Amino acid sequence: MSISVLDMSMSLDGYIADPDDFLGGEDGERLHKWDDVKDESGRPSGVVGRFLDEWSAAGAVLAGRRTAELMDHWGGDHGGLPIFVPSHRPPGPAARWGYPLVTYVIDGIESAMAQAKAAAGDRDVQVRGAYTAQRALAAGVLDELQIHQIPVLLGRGRRLFDVLPSEIELEIVRVIDTPEATHIRYRVRR
Amino acid sequence: MSISVLDMSMSLDGYIADPDDFLGGEDGERLHKWDDVKDESGRPSGVVGRFLDEWSAAGAVLAGRRTAELMDHWGGDHGGLPIFVPSHRPPGPAARWGYPLVTYVIDGIESAMAQAKAAAGDRDVQVRGAYTAQRALAAGVLDELQIHQIPVLLGRGRRLFDVLPSEIELEIVRVIDTPEATHIRYRVRR
Repeated sequence: MSISVLDMSMSLDGYIADPDDFLGGEDGERLHKWDDVKDESGRPSGVVGRFLDEWSAAGAVLAGRRTAELMDHWGGDHGGLPIFVPSHRPPGPAARWGYPLVTYVIDGIESAMAQAKAAAGDRDVQVRGAYTAQRALAAGVLDELQIHQIPVLLGRGRRLFDVLPSEIELEIVRVIDTPEATHIRYRVRR
Repeated sequence: MSISVLDMSMSLDGYIADPDDFLGGEDGERLHKWDDVKDESGRPSGVVGRFLDEWSAAGAVLAGRRTAELMDHWGGDHGGLPIFVPSHRPPGPAARWGYPLVTYVIDGIESAMAQAKAAAGDRDVQVRGAYTAQRALAAGVLDELQIHQIPVLLGRGRRLFDVLPSEIELEIVRVIDTPEATHIRYRVRR
């Protein structure tokens, strides 16, 4: 069965990006230093390798329009995966004609998630974008959150959570404790 | 050597209280359910007992004025500890005349912390109140943060972090993984 997962690196004070969308901190990359940790042979460390495996196990992507356009739809190719973008406005020219793997879904996030899960088969759906993740949470179609909590207070930026309409209970599925981040996986309780 | 610690229960979306200062969620106590977990004999569970021990090891309290007044200065007696309140305004009547253990400090948070640490001796200073904790962080006089991260999204309330002027790096000292909360202790890097 396919599950939908939001995977996000977040500072202790709740930010996932700078105000200008860079990835946090004075060097613009603070929140993603953890996934660049190498072992002695120069390969990704054990924990990073584990997450690389999890990311590559996805079968489809559901991306918010803002994120999708900011990333130019990953050039139309997000690891060969089908990309679904919920939006009430029609896609721009590149997404409409240039990117066969990109599908805009105009009839709501529930429909977009259903299409993404159907396309993913037994694999996971990766959810991209904070606003869309919150809409998926509110609509009851986000199954899990993988939060990489970074030991830094950024003081400003874009928050992961700011538009949730109601209280949502979570279940802690797994905690991985490293010096670079506390990796907590949550399941959404229904 | 005395260290100053902020100990706070926080939802995954960063809230420490409801907008009306209750402790979160529909029942107003969601963020503090974890510290009411009992073992089979009806005593606090192992993890809760450990934190009760840590809390009772404090030697002084530094409390924000808002928190102190909301709690009526704990009736003047916070476990017999001296209580320091940084404030530029003079104290109200109860704190001025009725509570010998309460000291208002008018010349800044650095001074208040120095007095609290002197009073605490070798024991810790407990910091109370989100605004004051952030001022202590910004002033470089908060040493550690003990965050009890609760697996819930509240969607609204009072945030722990919202007025930090700059980036602050932390070091993860300890992670305790329980079903009720992820207890993460951070040291502030200087």
